Amino acid sequence: DPYLKVFTLNSNPNLAHEVTKQIGVEMGKSSVKRFSDGEIQVNIEESIRGCDVFLVQSTSEPANEHLMELLIMIDAMKRASAETINVVIPYYGYARQDRKARSREPITSKLVANLLETAGATRVLTIDLHATQIQGFFDIPVDQLLAEPILSKHFQDKGVEDTVIVSPDHGGVVRARKMADRLKAPIAIIDKRRPKPNVSEVMNIVGNVEGKTAIIVDDIIDTAGTMTLAADALLEAGAMEVYACSTHPVLSGPAIERIQNSNIKELAVTNTIVLPEEKKIDKITQLSLAPLIAEAIIRVHEQTSVSTLFE
Amino acid sequence: DPYLKVFTLNSNPNLAHEVTKQIGVEMGKSSVKRFSDGEIQVNIEESIRGCDVFLVQSTSEPANEHLMELLIMIDAMKRASAETINVVIPYYGYARQDRKARSREPITSKLVANLLETAGATRVLTIDLHATQIQGFFDIPVDQLLAEPILSKHFQDKGVEDTVIVSPDHGGVVRARKMADRLKAPIAIIDKRRPKPNVSEVMNIVGNVEGKTAIIVDDIIDTAGTMTLAADALLEAGAMEVYACSTHPVLSGPAIERIQNSNIKELAVTNTIVLPEEKKIDKITQLSLAPLIAEAIIRVHEQTSVSTLFE
Ligand SMILES: Nc1ncnc2c1ncn2[C@@H]1O[C@H](COP(=O)(O)O)[C@@H](O)[C@H]1O
Ligand SMILES: Nc1ncnc2c1ncn2[C@@H]1O[C@H](COP(=O)(O)O)[C@@H](O)[C@H]1O
Repeated sequence: DPYLKVFTLNSNPNLAHEVTKQIGVEMGKSSVKRFSDGEIQVNIEESIRGCDVFLVQSTSEPANEHLMELLIMIDAMKRASAETINVVIPYYGYARQDRKARSREPITSKLVANLLETAGATRVLTIDLHATQIQGFFDIPVDQLLAEPILSKHFQDKGVEDTVIVSPDHGGVVRARKMADRLKAPIAIIDKRRPKPNVSEVMNIVGNVEGKTAIIVDDIIDTAGTMTLAADALLEAGAMEVYACSTHPVLSGPAIERIQNSNIKELAVTNTIVLPEEKKIDKITQLSLAPLIAEAIIRVHEQTSVSTLFE
Repeated sequence: DPYLKVFTLNSNPNLAHEVTKQIGVEMGKSSVKRFSDGEIQVNIEESIRGCDVFLVQSTSEPANEHLMELLIMIDAMKRASAETINVVIPYYGYARQDRKARSREPITSKLVANLLETAGATRVLTIDLHATQIQGFFDIPVDQLLAEPILSKHFQDKGVEDTVIVSPDHGGVVRARKMADRLKAPIAIIDKRRPKPNVSEVMNIVGNVEGKTAIIVDDIIDTAGTMTLAADALLEAGAMEVYACSTHPVLSGPAIERIQNSNIKELAVTNTIVLPEEKKIDKITQLSLAPLIAEAIIRVHEQTSVSTLFE
């Protein structure tokens, strides 16, 4: 049987270390340094010949640096005769560039899939892909884990009652539906509409939120514009209070300030992306996906089904 | 006949603009911007359907950012139905990671070749590859141009006489030989040797430099340690004065300070890599390769031989 080894790169070492603790293995010995001119130098400091290697790296900001670290390490592992190279990408960057919305646009999430395969990845384990069709961009197996059960449990444990689960756009309804089923709650949808060109968007709410505790659910929270405006619209429509949750805390630009000043009582996120100190504010609760990822790694290694993890 | 279009990315726009002027075409309209989270957003602002596209980008520092810009733009151009996508990479980064020197090392220059092909490049035009075997890492045509004639001409025009062309290591002898032939000069080689472990290297000079004007020639000048020590060794061995030249001015870390304080009278480099203001010191002369690159682009487009450009 091939031996299981877990390695981390620089995007999310804490999560990777939690994962190795959960599994009960030592972290694989490796390092990523820079040459004087900034080029990446990777070192694998133990044999991986014949091993089932799991390599943990989110392609979060800086996406290009993190992606290149990952590609170069995969190349080194392939040449070091790893039996399988399973890349664990908790946050899959460039996922929003998933189609040609305008002429002459790239489809960067497909490009990234091709690059990972070209480098030598043999399997991908990821969490809440922004667009589920990205799974099909790969010709190697892709297991997509869902953070929804962990986010749902957080609100159950909090004891919030009489909730309504809100999707901030039409694309997120399936995600909201899942959480609503688990929490036995109804759903509502924010329906953004621009009445005329060059007039700002209006947020209509489809569904009843009056007197309820609203929980907005999204996959990525980036600049937090939509999320904070949605909270205002929900309160205006009679919601008692507004919580929010999102798997991937990208939180770029004005995000933290907006959340701080918003009507959102609490934002629950996961640790697919590291929160630097300046983003750790009281309103944000970060939940760990290490147990979920550890379980998935064990199942992939033992060749049992990963899909039952979603139930 | 397909139409010729030249585009630039962010690493070396001045060189690219010089090239379009030489060819007599307008620069292709495109831009590379960043989303709020730092992900790259490329825009091609004119049709390239059926065109012979030439895309100019050095993968110089920051190598990963410049490489990802290039890959994403190639992807967009492929999807925009370009007839051919010719990537002009004046400085090919990661060229020094060209073999497994130690166990479990990546071969990043091969990885980069694979990534460029995967993205959709159909041809590569580059200058003075650090390792000529990198040409063979590609399955698409690679034209390698040489800066040697332009560097040689610089010293001829200066009127330096009674010269000896010096290779700073055994790997560079072929390059030195070319320049020596053109300048009708003898060659010398710096033979670095470590007499015992943990004792610093000794620079022996193979060949006669006494009373001569030495011109050290190398492909990449990075931290400038070897080059400046070689200059000292040459003067000690009786050289009258020492000039240096190098195609690719990487000039990282202590390079500028070392050159400033060195016994090198002048360092001639090319514009494959942009010199920021703080690196533009009097001792460094930068020569343009735009005429050479322009001529090569025209020949590729007209499907005539590029190799005679080397004579
Ligand atoms: N990193 C990014 N940040 C913000 N917007 C992006 C990013 N990447 C792609 N997009 C844009 O987001 C839109 C797709 O988002 P969505 O409709 O949520 O799938 C497209 O118009 C993309 O051009
Ligand atoms: N960006 C870089 N800066 C400095 N050294 C490098 C770089 N990339 C690779 N190397 C090392 O340079 C050596 C090869 O250089 P060379 O012998 O000149 O071909 C190998 O030991 C590499 O590990």
